Amino acid sequence: MTASLAYGTPSADAALAPMQIERRALRSDDVAIDITHCGICHTDLHQARNDWGSTTYPCVPGHEIVGRVTAIGPTVTKFAVGDPVGVGCFVDSCQACAACAEGKEQQCLQRVTPTYNGKDRVTGEPTFGGYSQRIVVRQKFVLKMPPNLDLARAAPLLCAGITAWAPLRRWKVGPGSKVAVVGLGGLGHMGVKLAAALGAEVTMITTSISKTADARALGATHVLVSTDAEAMQAAAGKFDFIYDTIPRRHDLNPYLMLLGREAVLVIVGAVELLEPFHSGLLIRNDHVIAGSMVGSLPATQEMLDFCGEHDILPLCETIRIDEVNTAYERMLANDVKYRFVIDMATLG
Amino acid sequence: MTASLAYGTPSADAALAPMQIERRALRSDDVAIDITHCGICHTDLHQARNDWGSTTYPCVPGHEIVGRVTAIGPTVTKFAVGDPVGVGCFVDSCQACAACAEGKEQQCLQRVTPTYNGKDRVTGEPTFGGYSQRIVVRQKFVLKMPPNLDLARAAPLLCAGITAWAPLRRWKVGPGSKVAVVGLGGLGHMGVKLAAALGAEVTMITTSISKTADARALGATHVLVSTDAEAMQAAAGKFDFIYDTIPRRHDLNPYLMLLGREAVLVIVGAVELLEPFHSGLLIRNDHVIAGSMVGSLPATQEMLDFCGEHDILPLCETIRIDEVNTAYERMLANDVKYRFVIDMATLG
Repeated sequence: MTASLAYGTPSADAALAPMQIERRALRSDDVAIDITHCGICHTDLHQARNDWGSTTYPCVPGHEIVGRVTAIGPTVTKFAVGDPVGVGCFVDSCQACAACAEGKEQQCLQRVTPTYNGKDRVTGEPTFGGYSQRIVVRQKFVLKMPPNLDLARAAPLLCAGITAWAPLRRWKVGPGSKVAVVGLGGLGHMGVKLAAALGAEVTMITTSISKTADARALGATHVLVSTDAEAMQAAAGKFDFIYDTIPRRHDLNPYLMLLGREAVLVIVGAVELLEPFHSGLLIRNDHVIAGSMVGSLPATQEMLDFCGEHDILPLCETIRIDEVNTAYERMLANDVKYRFVIDMATLG
Repeated sequence: MTASLAYGTPSADAALAPMQIERRALRSDDVAIDITHCGICHTDLHQARNDWGSTTYPCVPGHEIVGRVTAIGPTVTKFAVGDPVGVGCFVDSCQACAACAEGKEQQCLQRVTPTYNGKDRVTGEPTFGGYSQRIVVRQKFVLKMPPNLDLARAAPLLCAGITAWAPLRRWKVGPGSKVAVVGLGGLGHMGVKLAAALGAEVTMITTSISKTADARALGATHVLVSTDAEAMQAAAGKFDFIYDTIPRRHDLNPYLMLLGREAVLVIVGAVELLEPFHSGLLIRNDHVIAGSMVGSLPATQEMLDFCGEHDILPLCETIRIDEVNTAYERMLANDVKYRFVIDMATLG
């Protein structure tokens, strides 16, 4: 049995009692991991509270997982005991469809097995996430952590990091690219860091001028205040790529105005109906609105290696396991710079 | 003076009286063209009737122009008297900005000079379009018509043709691509023809099963009726590329459902607010919504050459100049297969 923080019901209070959760026995291509840290993603909060109506209880959230290998199955070749490793948003897939064949398990036509609130493909039992001392994962879905990256801060790379990285790479952001990042949260701050490290000129778009110093410290060279109509007008057509991390329904029109010729606005945050937008803004200069959901395993490994090489780490606030619900409330109040990470030594 | 069909006011009746319009004298890099045929685009109707509030009268519409060269300026090298030529949606640009330097005049940062309802960059005088016996255009903006293409049918290639071609090429449609075309009008029928000629497997999406035979004749191998919920459900995730030519506000959600992994929906028709769409449909499989507006001069020439090689011509109904207003009414009633073309011999 493994100590975990499980949500027994949608009630917030129920989370305060840690539970013992059975982790599966090691299969031949499995890796057992002692979790040292787990980041807290907005999705955790939505799932723990059944905001999307799809949560099975008990629910152990957490898909920004780092730790060390403690055991390996007999056919595991990629890892050895003691290796620093990471696990992201999914832990299995069909391995038979066109998406899996392309190394794009996140798009598995049979749907990936999410790290938590999913069903194990072998036993049908529920999957449990990273708010836990231990996890067992098929080796293909485990990432190598570059040894120089501080595990205490690296966990958010497994979701917030790859969510920024995948669209930056798909849309070929690099030296000379003019990038804007909308929203300075967990996703946005990784967008700024990674785009800047890729050589782009980065502008932070925010509602508050007070974030200027923070944005610059992350690597933004400009700050654009979205409520300043004159500044927004002056920036019309200036960007090649806009990374829109706003996590709720919003109006795309002001951001579409900022796109340059053939430029791309990527949406990752809002998973709901968007306000109507004017298609003339899309047509006039062949603009693009693209969605993006996490990224492939190879892209995730590429991102981790890139972060190792360039010493890129998220900015985190480390918390104890008994502070998770307080952290959720602070996330809802936008009071986090920029990701909470649970120190798993505080559990058990 | 050149006989033209000019709209003197937004009143439909005013159009029935042809006018004499002065065409500019030949400049050194100009080509004078005797227009043999001009296609009728929806834009003509909107501009003639001042639907967008931006029309200057008198207005001579027409930007799907074909004809023969009758005179050339002293520095013209690309054309000789007698050559079959075409003119599309724009006739000049700044030739100094980054877009023009890339050969993307349609995206000119100083804005292109539209073929009609624009202002000549030298004299500031209004530009007049192709409902006319004659036009004078800077050679760079004149296209070579492949000699084997029947001029009586080729005119719609200059707008409807390139509007389909540019996004098909940008998004790399080719052998093996699964393409859907939404809306069987001037744009849609060229989309089917060109996508099929590029080797794609083409599905026509229409509200009416009655269009099946027509769609197949154009090159579609499947027809999907958008009001058939079961068929739409069965087609979920099936397409790599959807060419959406619906010319008015509409709901993208049913079409977003049809996109496969990383697939693209291109909007060219509706130039207005779209219904709200669910961004989850965009995010889940990294989908793309892209706008597209006509295409570059090199892309237009490439499309014309391709049509020459593959004997691709629009399906047209040839009309007399005094039938233009009737044609407008029939277009509004969706009663045209699939483009009206004015025989300019009937003018004057």
